[in-house]
Amino acid sequence: MYKVNVIIKRRPKILDPQGKAVEQGAKMLGFSNINGTRIGKFIEFFVNTDDREIADKEIKEYCEKLLANPIMEDFEYSVEEVK
Amino acid sequence: MYKVNVIIKRRPKILDPQGKAVEQGAKMLGFSNINGTRIGKFIEFFVNTDDREIADKEIKEYCEKLLANPIMEDFEYSVEEVK
Repeated sequence: MYKVNVIIKRRPKILDPQGKAVEQGAKMLGFSNINGTRIGKFIEFFVNTDDREIADKEIKEYCEKLLANPIMEDFEYSVEEVK
Repeated sequence: MYKVNVIIKRRPKILDPQGKAVEQGAKMLGFSNINGTRIGKFIEFFVNTDDREIADKEIKEYCEKLLANPIMEDFEYSVEEVK
């Protein structure tokens, strides 16, 4: 079995209104040094196979078809084996 | 200046309906090996100071007051210096 961590980020050129909104709140609360806030996703799951090749194929497909929006987002993932 | 990466996760005992929903979609698409999907946030920002102590204080406060929900979520962050 594998444990997978996926990070999904908007592409750098794509605006991030959620990040902007949170940062505006921060400025109003007096956080004067914070800037460039961008909000993405951190996703964890398990893949129930011991074949790393099958796992990689399934992880990539899961990311591309369900987790990330291929038009606006990029993803990267790391895998660790668990018992 | 510091670049900060924050990972925000729901506490393990708190249900994650969004993760459940995505995983249900996955099962319907034939991903039979995927399970335990949990969806959190990955947040990036810059702190415009060269004093690490001030940066740490501001990062923690930003996470606690604006980025994470202290009732349901835990956060961890990493910091790297940038020019």
